[in-house]
Amino acid sequence: MTNRRSFLQRLSAVTATSIVAPVVLQASPISKENTFGSSSLQFPIGFAGYSFVKFNLDQSLDMMKRLQVKYLSVKDFHLPLNSSPAQMDVIKKKFAEHGITPYTVGVIYMKSKQEVDNAFAYAQAFGVSMIVGVPDENLLPYVEEKVKLTNIKMAIHNHGPEDKLYPTPKSIYDRIKKMDSRMGLCIDIGHTFRAGVLPEEAIKLYADRLFDLHIKDEAAMKPDAKTIEIGRGAINFSALIDVLRKINYKGICSVEYEKDMDAPLVGMAESVGYFKGIMSK
Amino acid sequence: MTNRRSFLQRLSAVTATSIVAPVVLQASPISKENTFGSSSLQFPIGFAGYSFVKFNLDQSLDMMKRLQVKYLSVKDFHLPLNSSPAQMDVIKKKFAEHGITPYTVGVIYMKSKQEVDNAFAYAQAFGVSMIVGVPDENLLPYVEEKVKLTNIKMAIHNHGPEDKLYPTPKSIYDRIKKMDSRMGLCIDIGHTFRAGVLPEEAIKLYADRLFDLHIKDEAAMKPDAKTIEIGRGAINFSALIDVLRKINYKGICSVEYEKDMDAPLVGMAESVGYFKGIMSK
Repeated sequence: MTNRRSFLQRLSAVTATSIVAPVVLQASPISKENTFGSSSLQFPIGFAGYSFVKFNLDQSLDMMKRLQVKYLSVKDFHLPLNSSPAQMDVIKKKFAEHGITPYTVGVIYMKSKQEVDNAFAYAQAFGVSMIVGVPDENLLPYVEEKVKLTNIKMAIHNHGPEDKLYPTPKSIYDRIKKMDSRMGLCIDIGHTFRAGVLPEEAIKLYADRLFDLHIKDEAAMKPDAKTIEIGRGAINFSALIDVLRKINYKGICSVEYEKDMDAPLVGMAESVGYFKGIMSK
Repeated sequence: MTNRRSFLQRLSAVTATSIVAPVVLQASPISKENTFGSSSLQFPIGFAGYSFVKFNLDQSLDMMKRLQVKYLSVKDFHLPLNSSPAQMDVIKKKFAEHGITPYTVGVIYMKSKQEVDNAFAYAQAFGVSMIVGVPDENLLPYVEEKVKLTNIKMAIHNHGPEDKLYPTPKSIYDRIKKMDSRMGLCIDIGHTFRAGVLPEEAIKLYADRLFDLHIKDEAAMKPDAKTIEIGRGAINFSALIDVLRKINYKGICSVEYEKDMDAPLVGMAESVGYFKGIMSK
């Protein structure tokens, strides 16, 4: 994966294009303990923006601050796709004031070239180096062109068994594995599990293209399982942490909490606590 | 430690006294996984009643239910020491309705023989087999007599460095080690840590008399450290779980949450989540 230095070097080499370099807002999420193969490797915890669908950005950032979670994958309801630069500045300031880093945007659905263009312009203007997206299959070559042009990574997000296009990590990987190495996956472990696939297996198989994770628990391994507090369900988080350590995962573990969405803070707290606990052993 | 069967057998042998057998309300807290020396041994989580000092019993039980915590060490503000049998029945019913077991009473301070008598009568009437208490030093022989008479265990609770009588687990152990084996400790790991003692060391040293635990985290190992969410502080919970597994601890791990006491649920949830997580790895 591209680190910040090589990313900036590469950008400065692309002088023929008139790209405005995305401002890399985040500090490196890589923990000091993040040494290869370490059995004590810790991963930074974030939130997937959808967790806060019932709350405005200020409320959401306050909740994250209460839980000491420092990374957010920003959804469009907090950062509209048509935001002006001035509006983006206001939002960036809110993040800075809370000490929280917006490390990616999405999930963004793309059904036309125009929507792909919009997504990349938006990510670039806001200053993130990755988009979590669901581009239509026929748009993948065009997305790859944009990735090469902007050096913004595309992490394609799998939904569950009910999704015809990307029901599993494999359904994404098979389509992008021969493309540019900045085309990859945001594995949603809950949807993966509901589709009958063990997240720890998928992470191992597609490690070379794993850019982001949506972390949740499911009550059972079945298509219509309910998402519940992390630790209460059927996903094996011990195996998950083991494989993330084994592959030396460099990204964020973003909790997507989809229960009690009108009052999620207690369940979020239990989930974050559990995830921290299982990483600490 | 006495299991229920031998406890009842022993009670039935004490026919000369007119003791009313304490009704053992709780199901065995011992997990199925609780096999000696197992590296995956899990411990039942409870709450120390003081965590709910700002809430009535119904509110407290609702909060515990939300967190799926099933054991409470009951404080006197929820179960007054002078409760009538009818009042106790009302309270027992509330516990049963919430699926929560009141597994002990306390912390109860005892400064006279009368207060010792009251504490044992209260525990007996409510039907618990253990008191978490702080008896004055000169009362210890009398407490031992009552333990023998009632078969109710006494778990003496340590406070921190500011406490002249029981600042550390050692200060308790040294006073009771030659007494009846039902005289033991409720180690408060936070107070222990503030006193400069590693909880994992104290647990190892006094394992044969360890009946109960108050679990919390402290921001630092110093006398005036603040209690904070479990996992955020300086206590090594990984070492704690290791030693509890090593000694094959058979009791409850009761979280005592003493931060945000007006609105503790979020911090309690994070604490319980962390403790579950670190036990699961």
